[in-house]
Amino acid sequence: MPLNPTRSTDDCFAVILAGGEGSRFWPASRPDRPKQLLPLGSSRPLIQDTLERAEALVGPERVRVVAGGSLVGPLCSAAQGLTAERFLVEPQARSTGPALAWAAWEIEKQSPGAYMISLHADHVIHPLDGLVETVDRALAAARRGALVCIGIEPHRPETGYGYVQTGSVTGDRTWAARRFVEKPDLETAESYLAAGGFLWNSGIFVWRAAELLAAMRESTPEIAGAFPLLEAGDTEGYFSAVEPVSVDVGVMERSDSVEVALATFAWDDVGSWAALARTREADAQGNVMVGSGRVVDARRNIIWSEEGEVVLFDVDDLVVVRSGDVTLVTRRDAAPDLKKLVNRLRGDA
Amino acid sequence: MPLNPTRSTDDCFAVILAGGEGSRFWPASRPDRPKQLLPLGSSRPLIQDTLERAEALVGPERVRVVAGGSLVGPLCSAAQGLTAERFLVEPQARSTGPALAWAAWEIEKQSPGAYMISLHADHVIHPLDGLVETVDRALAAARRGALVCIGIEPHRPETGYGYVQTGSVTGDRTWAARRFVEKPDLETAESYLAAGGFLWNSGIFVWRAAELLAAMRESTPEIAGAFPLLEAGDTEGYFSAVEPVSVDVGVMERSDSVEVALATFAWDDVGSWAALARTREADAQGNVMVGSGRVVDARRNIIWSEEGEVVLFDVDDLVVVRSGDVTLVTRRDAAPDLKKLVNRLRGDA
Repeated sequence: MPLNPTRSTDDCFAVILAGGEGSRFWPASRPDRPKQLLPLGSSRPLIQDTLERAEALVGPERVRVVAGGSLVGPLCSAAQGLTAERFLVEPQARSTGPALAWAAWEIEKQSPGAYMISLHADHVIHPLDGLVETVDRALAAARRGALVCIGIEPHRPETGYGYVQTGSVTGDRTWAARRFVEKPDLETAESYLAAGGFLWNSGIFVWRAAELLAAMRESTPEIAGAFPLLEAGDTEGYFSAVEPVSVDVGVMERSDSVEVALATFAWDDVGSWAALARTREADAQGNVMVGSGRVVDARRNIIWSEEGEVVLFDVDDLVVVRSGDVTLVTRRDAAPDLKKLVNRLRGDA
Repeated sequence: MPLNPTRSTDDCFAVILAGGEGSRFWPASRPDRPKQLLPLGSSRPLIQDTLERAEALVGPERVRVVAGGSLVGPLCSAAQGLTAERFLVEPQARSTGPALAWAAWEIEKQSPGAYMISLHADHVIHPLDGLVETVDRALAAARRGALVCIGIEPHRPETGYGYVQTGSVTGDRTWAARRFVEKPDLETAESYLAAGGFLWNSGIFVWRAAELLAAMRESTPEIAGAFPLLEAGDTEGYFSAVEPVSVDVGVMERSDSVEVALATFAWDDVGSWAALARTREADAQGNVMVGSGRVVDARRNIIWSEEGEVVLFDVDDLVVVRSGDVTLVTRRDAAPDLKKLVNRLRGDA
């Protein structure tokens, strides 16, 4: 499927949410080097891959990056071609709802009636032309006034993702969204997979900026209540006044104009070290090695070494990370719970 | 049991075998820093503990240390009170038989009729008064002309040790040695434990120096054939001419004058990382940590960190070693096979 040179995205902005802290990749991820700065999807930082995707969708001029001020420098260093004037600098992190409302506000102000594609800086997506094709279909729905969520056909009973159930057909592989479900338990996830009609909520959205703001005015008082502060140009006041509600909970679960477009690309949110087994290449024994590692009689391990060599002997299904002063050893199964560990260690300290 | 101040060891030498390379403690042990230089039994290097034991047995003047020339400096640095003039410097490593024959030769030359106590630099022994009491009984047998092996009452079906079967009683907790058995399989080791009358061969021996040399002349041509070179003062020639046969195989298994004295001390040969669970203190979850480590939901792990912090999350029964440029992760069960890994890695390189 070639990129379509005739498609017009002159009225389209891409917004990259690049604020996340990513304690699930501790000790490689740290407050000054969150997940999106790490080469988790390819040999380049995730933000570099994401930036190139966004530029392919809308051109470099209409890419916006939302992040805290301390990340502007590190992100520009990590992503070739990214410059400070592309940033919307959040005074504080208040979840995706307030961030996307602010981005929509700024885009609508600059270019009334414009559309926006909301991307996460730390996802893995390929191939690019699948993304372009999917966004084109999503835009078609957005031009009818829909708030569009891009949904991924599930191929395993994943309990770490949210799901969206499809309703009546509204367009080409596009449906009304019947309901959103937050991370289900395994039994539920298995039943979704068996039943069909449930897609993973990728967190990638397409809408007219003004439409998002209108939907929030209707059903998201936690955020829209602070719009007068945006109107007055008081961004700091706005971020202090809003409640930290995600766009999924604050808008997508509440609005009647939500549609879901099926993705024709492979997607991973790289939610934990265990995801590297999907996003990076493994050896014949299923070991993934980033940095210097050697394995003997070892299977399905994930090694991340930023200095020195990690040697695994006769162990299976482990995650071993050597970064800075810290060496972490855990199980692949336990990697999604790493946040618990980080909180426990902070409690210790 | 107090040290006996009236015992006479004026005619006794202690010989510490300090040559081993110890690849089973890789990557912490290296050719220039073998196992005996590491704090595996206490917070001090094994050689320091061993030196103090030897000095308690015979006084500092009559301690001899056998090692290669490259280890003299490191050993003297590691063990307070050890000086270069205590060393018998091996021109090359040729197993314990040739080394002990040479030590016996030098001792007999200096002090005809003297006795020697042969110790390994890298064993853990306590308490000291148990060793003193045991050596006194062994010396009583050696004064009758016996070659005495000190035997340890086994308390687990260890497959990593040699065993010696006791025969008729010859003295106070001392028996004729019926036969020596090299590392048995588990079933055999279990049968020994059930039957009784089998002791672990500690590798600690007591004999009159001249008696060892006589026994070798009688039954160890691989070594005694080169005695004329020692006679001629050609130590290098001697080490080139001998075959690398252990004293167990070359003498103890062949001679009729071997006796075994029961130890009244606890002993460990610290044969692999797994031994640290026995020689160093563990936390309530059975984790042993040397250096900086933290564990959360982790049990029975062994952590050795020379720099930085090792963090274990939700893993059990592992060995994690961070030393120099290398981080090793293996299972406690696999630790005794580490030599295989080191050989494999050398083959790779």
